[in-house]
Amino acid sequence: MIRIVLLAVVTATSVGVAPASFGQAYYSPSGLQRIHNTLPERLGYPADAKLLIVHADDLGMAHSVNAATIKAFERGLVTSGSIMVPCPWLPEIAAYARSHPEADLGLHLTLTSEWSSYRWGPVLSKDRVASLLDKNSYFYLTESEAASHANTTEVEAEIRAQIDRARAFGIKPTHLDSHMGTLYQNKTLFETLLRVARDNKLPVMISKEWIASTNYLSSILNPNDIVIDKIITIGPGVKAEGWSKFYADAMKTIQPGVTEMVVHFAYDDEEMRAATIDHPDWGAAWRQRDLQFFTSDFFRRLLDENHIKLISWREIAKAQYPER
Amino acid sequence: MIRIVLLAVVTATSVGVAPASFGQAYYSPSGLQRIHNTLPERLGYPADAKLLIVHADDLGMAHSVNAATIKAFERGLVTSGSIMVPCPWLPEIAAYARSHPEADLGLHLTLTSEWSSYRWGPVLSKDRVASLLDKNSYFYLTESEAASHANTTEVEAEIRAQIDRARAFGIKPTHLDSHMGTLYQNKTLFETLLRVARDNKLPVMISKEWIASTNYLSSILNPNDIVIDKIITIGPGVKAEGWSKFYADAMKTIQPGVTEMVVHFAYDDEEMRAATIDHPDWGAAWRQRDLQFFTSDFFRRLLDENHIKLISWREIAKAQYPER
Repeated sequence: MIRIVLLAVVTATSVGVAPASFGQAYYSPSGLQRIHNTLPERLGYPADAKLLIVHADDLGMAHSVNAATIKAFERGLVTSGSIMVPCPWLPEIAAYARSHPEADLGLHLTLTSEWSSYRWGPVLSKDRVASLLDKNSYFYLTESEAASHANTTEVEAEIRAQIDRARAFGIKPTHLDSHMGTLYQNKTLFETLLRVARDNKLPVMISKEWIASTNYLSSILNPNDIVIDKIITIGPGVKAEGWSKFYADAMKTIQPGVTEMVVHFAYDDEEMRAATIDHPDWGAAWRQRDLQFFTSDFFRRLLDENHIKLISWREIAKAQYPER
Repeated sequence: MIRIVLLAVVTATSVGVAPASFGQAYYSPSGLQRIHNTLPERLGYPADAKLLIVHADDLGMAHSVNAATIKAFERGLVTSGSIMVPCPWLPEIAAYARSHPEADLGLHLTLTSEWSSYRWGPVLSKDRVASLLDKNSYFYLTESEAASHANTTEVEAEIRAQIDRARAFGIKPTHLDSHMGTLYQNKTLFETLLRVARDNKLPVMISKEWIASTNYLSSILNPNDIVIDKIITIGPGVKAEGWSKFYADAMKTIQPGVTEMVVHFAYDDEEMRAATIDHPDWGAAWRQRDLQFFTSDFFRRLLDENHIKLISWREIAKAQYPER
């Protein structure tokens, strides 16, 4: 799940607003030669290509999430996902990653445990990351609690350990992002994420709109960092009957450049209803609605009609770190 | 789940064999006066009462286990259960325990994580219990690996921490046992369990048959420790179509004294099938068969026809530690 309340994510209330301008210039590694005008060109597409990553969060969180997301991958209209390494169902999705090396799987770096009935803690030894844990030694329930308590050294050690564990399970991550946006909550946390990502030669999900909405992102990024144009995610303001319309409207407004749709899949089943009890936002029914939309013929037609091409984080990783 | 391969649990192959003799003498706290001839008398029943605890293992392991076991409790024919504190669904069953203080819930002390797709680790900081963890920092998959690697000091610290965490969640345990029988695997582990149990004034599940089948149990126990007569649990040798017959035959052979049936409930649903994948023994369908039997009118009739009275561990705890 991703909730980035501090940042200008497109939600129900803002879809339809024109996106921020794109057209960041890209330079050769020496910095001497301007080689691309647009991100699509850097990725090998025409400058005016409308490129979309449909990105499923929260893999590993529950069996229901794993099963639904794998179904969506197999349908072929969802290009990417990210894995929560500390969660109990990691081994199941890691087995999928090993048997599907073509799958575009990143890590949804996790410093929160947000469901009251069903919880998890850190990869590292609890004594080493005490600032990240609540009184029961689980991760905090909310991203704001996590961010306000977090010791940066402990955060860095824990997220490096999550990457190490993923690799020990045979996962070859293509990108990084942050569960519930915890690592985007302030400059120090984001710098930590970026340092770890660069050391691992992995791109980080970040959009130009976010840069524009904060006073710290632009000073941390450098010209080699790939910044996508727009991130779209549905919010609690959308009612069930408005689900398809939200996504259809969003797709009709997609501009040339790279857009990511952050989505959340699961079945509306007993496990998921119990895990998300008393929490309809990002709950079981919500996730099944996402699954239904992104496996539908309607979504396929919207892609075609709006001339939108699906891409993956693997392509971005190759462009950002061609030496990998 | 309980698997006690070293000990003489009644399984498909041994049901029908006459139970070991009962009739242990009980003494007053001063040790001067023989006050009861039999365990039923010590519990306040006639000497020839046939007393049965139907005990559901593995609470907290999965939502499916919690939901199925709560359903069985509500049906009224299952008297007791035990909770796996390190498991992700602990908070869900702890909420039930807080809202149902009459429920007879013990702790299924856990030092293994036996399902390959879905795993958990210790309550204590991993650095403090390194001998209990595999290369991925989960508990070992099997009770034999756990027992062979376990450092006794670390075992004691971890099981004390599990009791502490249970109490922090508002659970008031009535008894202790050991998931997959790990703490019954050798004398040192059992001594550790017994020391922790006595310090916490909690009875431990142990039967006279087990004492007879080992060379160490009798020397560790003292006259105040309550030892039940017989433990019955179904084994992999029973086919699905023989489920009811196994339990019916077992109930017809129950003798005066205290018998425990160790059972495992869950629904045969997606979560449980995924958790127990490639492992039909103690798997999803197995557990639903147990649920069906122990919530059936047939089981109720068998109780009546065989003059068997259901009791709980709370009664044993009160008899063993009247000062609690």
